[in-house]
Amino acid sequence: MSDALLVVGSVAFDSVQSRAGSRDELLGGAATYIGLAASHFCPVQLVAVVGENDFPQQYETLLSSRGVDLAGLEKAPGRTFRWAGRYADDFSTRETLDTQLGVFADFAPKIPAAFRDAKMLLLGNINPSVQRDVLDAVSPDCFVITDTMNLWIEIALAELKAVIARTSLLVINDEESLLLTGEPQVAVAAQKIRAMGPSWVIIKRGEHGAWLFGDEGIFLAPPLPLEEVVDPTGAGDSFAGGLAGFLCQSGAPSWPAVKQGMLYGTAIASGTCEAFGTEKTASLTRDDIDARYRRLRQLVSLDD
Amino acid sequence: MSDALLVVGSVAFDSVQSRAGSRDELLGGAATYIGLAASHFCPVQLVAVVGENDFPQQYETLLSSRGVDLAGLEKAPGRTFRWAGRYADDFSTRETLDTQLGVFADFAPKIPAAFRDAKMLLLGNINPSVQRDVLDAVSPDCFVITDTMNLWIEIALAELKAVIARTSLLVINDEESLLLTGEPQVAVAAQKIRAMGPSWVIIKRGEHGAWLFGDEGIFLAPPLPLEEVVDPTGAGDSFAGGLAGFLCQSGAPSWPAVKQGMLYGTAIASGTCEAFGTEKTASLTRDDIDARYRRLRQLVSLDD
Repeated sequence: MSDALLVVGSVAFDSVQSRAGSRDELLGGAATYIGLAASHFCPVQLVAVVGENDFPQQYETLLSSRGVDLAGLEKAPGRTFRWAGRYADDFSTRETLDTQLGVFADFAPKIPAAFRDAKMLLLGNINPSVQRDVLDAVSPDCFVITDTMNLWIEIALAELKAVIARTSLLVINDEESLLLTGEPQVAVAAQKIRAMGPSWVIIKRGEHGAWLFGDEGIFLAPPLPLEEVVDPTGAGDSFAGGLAGFLCQSGAPSWPAVKQGMLYGTAIASGTCEAFGTEKTASLTRDDIDARYRRLRQLVSLDD
Repeated sequence: MSDALLVVGSVAFDSVQSRAGSRDELLGGAATYIGLAASHFCPVQLVAVVGENDFPQQYETLLSSRGVDLAGLEKAPGRTFRWAGRYADDFSTRETLDTQLGVFADFAPKIPAAFRDAKMLLLGNINPSVQRDVLDAVSPDCFVITDTMNLWIEIALAELKAVIARTSLLVINDEESLLLTGEPQVAVAAQKIRAMGPSWVIIKRGEHGAWLFGDEGIFLAPPLPLEEVVDPTGAGDSFAGGLAGFLCQSGAPSWPAVKQGMLYGTAIASGTCEAFGTEKTASLTRDDIDARYRRLRQLVSLDD
């Protein structure tokens, strides 16, 4: 198997308004954030679709310069996926102002032959029937990390459950875990989800961190308290990408490695929130990331 | 100075409805939960008021048996404070069904002479002008922990700020910190509150734990994930009581001791949620508490 992380998901243009200002047509999308975050740790193979005429070369250059292999970036007739939204001043909620799926509406991922023996796969939030097709295209030994969203739980539950059954590590947020299980106590919801297949379940809790559940027990990854949030778009994807990237380069996935990976994912996600778009996700240095990791450890330490 | 913790606040009868069932006229009130939680660690001196004819001897016996000195429990003409409420099924909100202040409406704490040299004072959530009178009655060397609520921020801000200025450790929740400072980012709000006087500020985050801020840095106390919540009434007071009790018996208050105390407070508060009223807050053994403390440490450990 190759030592790469295969990432399948959206590449988009995001227009964002927050109390820090507004920006139009930023590079965004789950696969973009995941790929950039993971690229701090391992080779990344990206599979996504953009419009054949509206995707700037500079974005491809940015991704390539970070070690993201774009052999699976399809260019299709039509426009790149566009999303626009506005965050509440306390960032606890956001309002979607516009969604134009464009070429993403008919996304049928074509996995290049060279990507099919990836060690690890991160399935971004896309239609579960498309996620299933990707699973069919990779090695059965591939370690599978899956994300999803409320929409698929509501309209494609059977297909989603079939994907979850083939997932090693499911990463969702607390609203999604409630919707998927009907159980408001996160610790109980996680048990129900693990009974669907995944060995490990991570429930993201927004600014409160993320909780990991497995046969080994429970781990609470602390958040990094931020003094200024500019744009949280992609923070959850950056978390998943940093986690997956760390896991991919750390040998066989293990409980201790998932825990460390969650702190690395949190470290990168904290940076994502501090600037608009992918600016900081891409430009963080490994020293920045390591300093944030040490700070996360310090935040829960009883020593001194 | 004595080695006791002086607690001033409400003693009440609570009627509670939750998805686990309903109970009427349970022993409750902030001072009750604080005193019972602290009693696992240090001598407690309680100052509160109840009705002269409606407060059962068995409740006095319970408190006394836990080492709570009731010399400051005033019995006044009228009825004991009564509160009734109903929790949403996910416990994220509660609705107050009835409030009858009774003798608590005119509560003017009389601090017994033997209580005035207490090492530590926990001012429960009462009118700030009453909190000020208590501060005037104790030694200037007393370590002061203060709680408050939205109501006092809204109707008695100047008086509350005068109390906060004389407070060593303020314990509030995130809604209150936003209301007090206008700042949604908790880390920024905590700086603003510390500028009002307290060396240390703890912002309680409900089921997500509690964050401590000081010159020494930031500490995030994790929550104990619960599989079943029965009645969270008094959990915040149990947290503060466990913290204060631990601090009171651990020598001069220090940053490391506050951090440990937060875990002990969390340990007891997790028990409070598992049964109606004060049942579990009072009956936890020190072994139970220590086991929960060790579990909290394990939840954030990267080892094994």
